[in-house]
Amino acid sequence: MEKIKVIIAGPRGRMGSEAVKLVERTEKFELVAVVDHKHGGKLLTELEGVSTLPVPVFADITTCLTEVKADVLIDLTTPEVGMHHTKTALEFGVRPVVGTTGFTQENLAELENLCREKETGCIIAPNFALGAVLMMKFSQLAGRYFQDVEIIELHHDKKLDAPSGTAVKTAEMIAQVRAEKSQGHPDEKETLPGARGADFSGMHIHSVRLPGLIAHQQVMFGAEGQTLTIRHDSYDRVSFMSGVKLAVDTVMNLHTLVYGLENIIE
Amino acid sequence: MEKIKVIIAGPRGRMGSEAVKLVERTEKFELVAVVDHKHGGKLLTELEGVSTLPVPVFADITTCLTEVKADVLIDLTTPEVGMHHTKTALEFGVRPVVGTTGFTQENLAELENLCREKETGCIIAPNFALGAVLMMKFSQLAGRYFQDVEIIELHHDKKLDAPSGTAVKTAEMIAQVRAEKSQGHPDEKETLPGARGADFSGMHIHSVRLPGLIAHQQVMFGAEGQTLTIRHDSYDRVSFMSGVKLAVDTVMNLHTLVYGLENIIE
Amino acid sequence: MEKIKVIIAGPRGRMGSEAVKLVERTEKFELVAVVDHKHGGKLLTELEGVSTLPVPVFADITTCLTEVKADVLIDLTTPEVGMHHTKTALEFGVRPVVGTTGFTQENLAELENLCREKETGCIIAPNFALGAVLMMKFSQLAGRYFQDVEIIELHHDKKLDAPSGTAVKTAEMIAQVRAEKSQGHPDEKETLPGARGADFSGMHIHSVRLPGLIAHQQVMFGAEGQTLTIRHDSYDRVSFMSGVKLAVDTVMNLHTLVYGLENIIE
Amino acid sequence: MEKIKVIIAGPRGRMGSEAVKLVERTEKFELVAVVDHKHGGKLLTELEGVSTLPVPVFADITTCLTEVKADVLIDLTTPEVGMHHTKTALEFGVRPVVGTTGFTQENLAELENLCREKETGCIIAPNFALGAVLMMKFSQLAGRYFQDVEIIELHHDKKLDAPSGTAVKTAEMIAQVRAEKSQGHPDEKETLPGARGADFSGMHIHSVRLPGLIAHQQVMFGAEGQTLTIRHDSYDRVSFMSGVKLAVDTVMNLHTLVYGLENIIE
Repeated sequence: MEKIKVIIAGPRGRMGSEAVKLVERTEKFELVAVVDHKHGGKLLTELEGVSTLPVPVFADITTCLTEVKADVLIDLTTPEVGMHHTKTALEFGVRPVVGTTGFTQENLAELENLCREKETGCIIAPNFALGAVLMMKFSQLAGRYFQDVEIIELHHDKKLDAPSGTAVKTAEMIAQVRAEKSQGHPDEKETLPGARGADFSGMHIHSVRLPGLIAHQQVMFGAEGQTLTIRHDSYDRVSFMSGVKLAVDTVMNLHTLVYGLENIIE
Repeated sequence: MEKIKVIIAGPRGRMGSEAVKLVERTEKFELVAVVDHKHGGKLLTELEGVSTLPVPVFADITTCLTEVKADVLIDLTTPEVGMHHTKTALEFGVRPVVGTTGFTQENLAELENLCREKETGCIIAPNFALGAVLMMKFSQLAGRYFQDVEIIELHHDKKLDAPSGTAVKTAEMIAQVRAEKSQGHPDEKETLPGARGADFSGMHIHSVRLPGLIAHQQVMFGAEGQTLTIRHDSYDRVSFMSGVKLAVDTVMNLHTLVYGLENIIE
Repeated sequence: MEKIKVIIAGPRGRMGSEAVKLVERTEKFELVAVVDHKHGGKLLTELEGVSTLPVPVFADITTCLTEVKADVLIDLTTPEVGMHHTKTALEFGVRPVVGTTGFTQENLAELENLCREKETGCIIAPNFALGAVLMMKFSQLAGRYFQDVEIIELHHDKKLDAPSGTAVKTAEMIAQVRAEKSQGHPDEKETLPGARGADFSGMHIHSVRLPGLIAHQQVMFGAEGQTLTIRHDSYDRVSFMSGVKLAVDTVMNLHTLVYGLENIIE
Repeated sequence: MEKIKVIIAGPRGRMGSEAVKLVERTEKFELVAVVDHKHGGKLLTELEGVSTLPVPVFADITTCLTEVKADVLIDLTTPEVGMHHTKTALEFGVRPVVGTTGFTQENLAELENLCREKETGCIIAPNFALGAVLMMKFSQLAGRYFQDVEIIELHHDKKLDAPSGTAVKTAEMIAQVRAEKSQGHPDEKETLPGARGADFSGMHIHSVRLPGLIAHQQVMFGAEGQTLTIRHDSYDRVSFMSGVKLAVDTVMNLHTLVYGLENIIE
């Protein structure tokens, strides 16, 4: 089997350096170049602590794509740089896999047209944590059949906002399919205010904060005589890598733009 | 909205008596008759402890269907009686919802043909516990993306067999899609035999037995930096009723035979 | 070994009927009489559905204690009746085990004196669920070493009050030993009000309500790099019986009044 | 309040470097010296990445204790070096807190005598993870009241042995107080061998291995109608530090040897 040739943009970042490791240790992937505007002309081995692979570093995406033949560009830079990289990759027929929450609707519309025109696949994902994406997807599926649901999210006590973005996104996804209902007894009383948590379309969200915890979420559905619980525990940011790997595999067979990992999961 | 007219066969059984209560308290369902070979000619109110609805009891399905107009037959009898009831209902154009594990392949093939011929929907389910069915379905979906999985099932200590039938069925469903792998370290050693549980295609299954527990199962998937857990807790046999309700709703829009609740869940 | 001779007052109540079963099936206990003001003079077998043991029923505690020799009186009646029963039993040198939340401070002081005078043990417990009592006791112990704690209690959605009485009691017990601290980040913000739950001396309490659930509580302690969780799941009111059994065993060796099951657990 | 003056031996090790950070950030502790045989004569700031505190480094414990006045020695070296350090500290009237699993019964007897002679406290702990120690202690307490118990331990899939040492130690501690019983139905059958886990005095132990997991253990007790669960999740080795801190605080008030953190927890 021929290997998938991969370029990584942003190899010194938190996500980028993990992506380098992922590509290195994945049998069927081959790292062919990296893009790093500060280190053009060097070898990756010269960038401290990143890799022992002597692949070339390019300061500029266009030069990189002109000189190196690749299948996929993994972009883990900033929204501005990422937009430029993504468009250029598509022009060269290279499939982009982009981790960003920063693209606007206009950005996405432009990229969607470009994908269609070039008949080249592209995956843009605000969240590469495959387990979290599956948790949300399963919760939405379960929400069709179970009207009663409460979300408990648990994080370290350095977190400033409650509830977490993932909890709100999960509630939004469930709300799209769930017959609305105010969860709990109609006459329930809080003898201590806040006990019943936050209300989102009648679902309740509870935010637990403790030192020691990392990032966890539990979605509980109830019906007479039973409960169904879907839980994701994220212990380390390397958890994002399983989603990056899936995206690289999948983008090889796409010819359009896909936004959100949940849309490449059947 | 017109109500769905329901006949229940087997109203005095464990499942049947719960089904009577379900139909009674569901706004859009209407109980129009019951079939009970011991009590033909009575009213349901005369059967001790079952219901306060004065609907007629028939000893025989054919008489019942001739005299009463219905949309759905819920059959919670035995495989032999159920087969006769199901065929008769289909002949009358009434949609059967049947809870049984006892139909043979021949039975199912015969009913499938009859459904097609009569263009009448029919749902046959060995398990109506909607939460358990979703747990298995989600586990199968997750098994495509997570190769590493262990199943923990927990039951009361009166249970004779380990692992539970649901655990084995879950493992079978995951095995259909999972890239086979022997879970755990290749050189792992059991210093106490059995510690690593039962092996099913490289997945491990652990059976916990304690007084107090009822019927619980937890399917855990792991990947670098994260775990995804899907758990079902069954506290009471009334949990079956949410599946019966879904089946009655769904069968109204079917024109063929569906076997297994998982196949009416999208 | 000689059996412990037990009288039960209130044998037809929810708790009482379970206590009858408990005493019947416990090898070293022997049911010698019951007190039931409505059925004096009958045999227990004549009270529908309670027991197959032909022990005598007395309408009145004094007659009962005069005619039958006993070691322990299990009283599961009302506070008023229970107070009279308890005092009478102590006068006769019979050790009372009483399940009630209704005794006043004056009642308890009076009984304490009577116990001391008669040198007879007595146990009065507002909660006989041994697991719940241990959960509270362990939580209090852990609270000495872990300052950061959050309580999640989960109940069926018929429950009117939030948080549960047990959650508040647990928080009170922890507060007695815990160095006070406002849990969570000092600058945390609720983007949806209530997300962070109820505040009790800086601890947070979260109340989950779902159909299917019964009565569950989870106390979570966190410190750098670790969490410690103590959880009680109550599935059925028979759970109270393990505490009654322990109290009967223990009261045989007491010569004073003990209030609360936590105080007979070392 | 006067600060507790602390010396740390082994400041460059995994545990030692965390201990340096702990002492630095704890208000009432003061780091006064470190012992490191490779770097005698330097300042701690000259040891790469350990600390910004300019405390002196000594190659030798005797010189260190002669030149620097201290209250406590935290020793996180090897058993051989640690034994020498501990004895020397006791001779100087400095209280040792030692993390080691390697001391022999003879070592411990010798140190116990020396403590008594010098009337100086000393704490030696094979495990400083306070949460794990409490989990074991609570499990032992619960084992007096609940005869039925199963242990589930969950670790990353790089772990070679099953069950874990902590699981076996927990089972041993429970076995000391539990009325022996073979858990599960007397006639239970494993349809897949190993499903019921490992047997330890009739308790069952289940070892789950998944990538993503770190080090977790759940001890479940069951009785009619209820379960009690005690769980410890260890996410990071910094979890050991809460136990070191407790030991330093406690040793100040001791005049004898204590072995095991569980024995300083009331």
